[in-house]
Amino acid sequence: MTLSSLLSEHPSLERDPQGTVSSPVGFLAGAAACGLKKGGDLDVALLFSNTNCTAAGMFTRNRVAAAPVQLDREVLATGSESICAVVANSGCANACTGRKGLKVARAIQLAAAELLALHPHQVLLLSTGVIGTHLPIEKLKPGVKLAASRLSAQGGLEAARAIMTTDTCPKHVSISVNMPGGRITVGGIAKGAGMIHPEMATMLAVLTTDAKVSQSNLTRILKSVVDQSFNRISVDGDTSTNDTVLLLANGCSTVNVDTADELALFSQVLGLVCIELAQRIVRDGEGATRFVEIKVRGAGGNKQARRVAVTIAKSTLFKTAVAGGDPNWGRILAAAGRSDVVFDPDRVSLWIANPGSEPLKLVAHGVPIPYSEDEAAAVFAGSDILLQLDLGGSEGTAVYWTSDLTQEYVAINAHYRT
Amino acid sequence: MTLSSLLSEHPSLERDPQGTVSSPVGFLAGAAACGLKKGGDLDVALLFSNTNCTAAGMFTRNRVAAAPVQLDREVLATGSESICAVVANSGCANACTGRKGLKVARAIQLAAAELLALHPHQVLLLSTGVIGTHLPIEKLKPGVKLAASRLSAQGGLEAARAIMTTDTCPKHVSISVNMPGGRITVGGIAKGAGMIHPEMATMLAVLTTDAKVSQSNLTRILKSVVDQSFNRISVDGDTSTNDTVLLLANGCSTVNVDTADELALFSQVLGLVCIELAQRIVRDGEGATRFVEIKVRGAGGNKQARRVAVTIAKSTLFKTAVAGGDPNWGRILAAAGRSDVVFDPDRVSLWIANPGSEPLKLVAHGVPIPYSEDEAAAVFAGSDILLQLDLGGSEGTAVYWTSDLTQEYVAINAHYRT
Repeated sequence: MTLSSLLSEHPSLERDPQGTVSSPVGFLAGAAACGLKKGGDLDVALLFSNTNCTAAGMFTRNRVAAAPVQLDREVLATGSESICAVVANSGCANACTGRKGLKVARAIQLAAAELLALHPHQVLLLSTGVIGTHLPIEKLKPGVKLAASRLSAQGGLEAARAIMTTDTCPKHVSISVNMPGGRITVGGIAKGAGMIHPEMATMLAVLTTDAKVSQSNLTRILKSVVDQSFNRISVDGDTSTNDTVLLLANGCSTVNVDTADELALFSQVLGLVCIELAQRIVRDGEGATRFVEIKVRGAGGNKQARRVAVTIAKSTLFKTAVAGGDPNWGRILAAAGRSDVVFDPDRVSLWIANPGSEPLKLVAHGVPIPYSEDEAAAVFAGSDILLQLDLGGSEGTAVYWTSDLTQEYVAINAHYRT
Repeated sequence: MTLSSLLSEHPSLERDPQGTVSSPVGFLAGAAACGLKKGGDLDVALLFSNTNCTAAGMFTRNRVAAAPVQLDREVLATGSESICAVVANSGCANACTGRKGLKVARAIQLAAAELLALHPHQVLLLSTGVIGTHLPIEKLKPGVKLAASRLSAQGGLEAARAIMTTDTCPKHVSISVNMPGGRITVGGIAKGAGMIHPEMATMLAVLTTDAKVSQSNLTRILKSVVDQSFNRISVDGDTSTNDTVLLLANGCSTVNVDTADELALFSQVLGLVCIELAQRIVRDGEGATRFVEIKVRGAGGNKQARRVAVTIAKSTLFKTAVAGGDPNWGRILAAAGRSDVVFDPDRVSLWIANPGSEPLKLVAHGVPIPYSEDEAAAVFAGSDILLQLDLGGSEGTAVYWTSDLTQEYVAINAHYRT
């Protein structure tokens, strides 16, 4: 489902590129700098709803899960219908910190709860930054207090800034649409930009809505939407220890989203928000200069198509060729060939294109066809590249988004801690 | 089995770092420049044995297999006890070239056979270079003829040079040892340096021996040895379309290798040759400045240990940290955590070391222990780094070798075809 096709069906739909998690009615956000990041940048964010929210979360599949991930899983497993706040910090991931890390996370949760007159189990936590260092509670506690003093309906942008690490820009969006019962808004913020290969969720994303949605519907919809958005991106193939997506619904619009039609529309709108945030993470991938959409079809099944797409999306050789603007398509076929998916190399076709341009066919039946190398190079010189790979089977499609791999990526990650 | 432990058991064992595929008795090699590579570099190699060889081969698992791989599979499936020659070229992989590519490969095979008075099925082929371009037969044919005119027992080094692509140095070694029936030699050449993540074989390697070994023993031993050498290395996680390891035994030493003890010793010697060639490929990995040995134990099983090791070896974030000399161990644990292997993060320990130095312990029971950041940085400043990761289980060990990921790697691969 694309924005334009949804717009034609629902003319009331409105996308606000300035929108954030505090765009839906009843959500306030605030941020502060408490010294976790060097240089006095914002590093703590607080999201608050005066009304209890139903909530759903998806977390990293990494076995080495950070303390905030462990804590949020526990909170959502016990009572996910009365969430009111999310505390997020950058500068320290609170991962590989053992029992002490979990104790620190609980202390932050308790401090935020006392500040906002909540039960600790109404507060969720997010952390991102260096792995293996302890979160300095003496800095974060005053930071949360300062962020709380700045809570406002305009605070979402600052919150998006406060969760940035190597990101070069904040990532946020909101979409509003008329439901049978009235108008609702879905908003979100997210951060990238390295250790991005979510598989299950993304680095950090917080989604909010003023719609009233039951906890079970929220969980089901989040799972399906994340699978089509955050689970379709890769910057460097490294699944983080902290990946978390949280979705909070406070019902402040007084609009019930409950019938099959309402839930389908809500799911589509949430999907657009998530795809936009996911793509922004890839576009802002560490050192990235090009954005690539990989479409695979004819792989024999959707799972197989996805496996081929992700193998291409992760291929170091493909990603460096994109960095160099070199349409070295042999690397695309070589990546497909090592993906463990069964296909006949003699039936493979490949096209490349820029958005809105006519696709240029490079390969037919597994061999190069006479194409202009200059035309192909022109496509790869663009900042947005679309690949279409047809493996020649009857069904099986998938879309995946990735960035190029540049010298700048290496420079950023060679000295991340210094 | 290490060289030093084998030496103490077999004092007759001798390793010749200058040795090559033409070191074993009865093998001749020659090379020529025929214009496949720019700049007049050697690009075609010929290996010849006047005596029929038993032969075994292992090939890429990539479904998009190059024409020479398809041809060699066919040859070895029909008659692998009368091989006499191998033709190898760089500058063009003859992959993704369809039926025409296979036809060209057959023509080269036939031309070499006529030149050497052989049946075409006594000739094996190897190709490496750019994928998706056709092999210019009008250049290669005279090249093979010229290489044939230069065949000599000293020609192995030139042959090793002729199969180089982005390699910065030729890779070769030979080892001799006394068997009950007399002295035998095993020699080998190989090339790297990118698209290295063999899983089944390596980019290109040719191994020779003057021992007399049955075809069935040769095949069994090659499989087991490759699994412990070429299948334990990764430069960039990309499995090539052309990966091939060939092993030829011509029996010219008149030494029969047949009893269990003889076969075990032969297998150990072949193993040393393969491990040395494999490690040289990693050391000469594209843009590589550091060599890393990853040892995993306590993973619950050898397969699991290997999966953890390979996930670390492929992690872009780990490899860029190594490039920067940054002992950012959180990325090692994060990679282990996403490897799909079940372990308890609270039982993990990690040591780092340089060869011959006392290991420095960084992590105990999943959390950082007080270590000197300066000492850790000094270890990562070395050109050889050893990681030991204990997952806390009772068994399951694996060794894997990898290189760092540098800006130079990106530079090489961004503009590989230009």
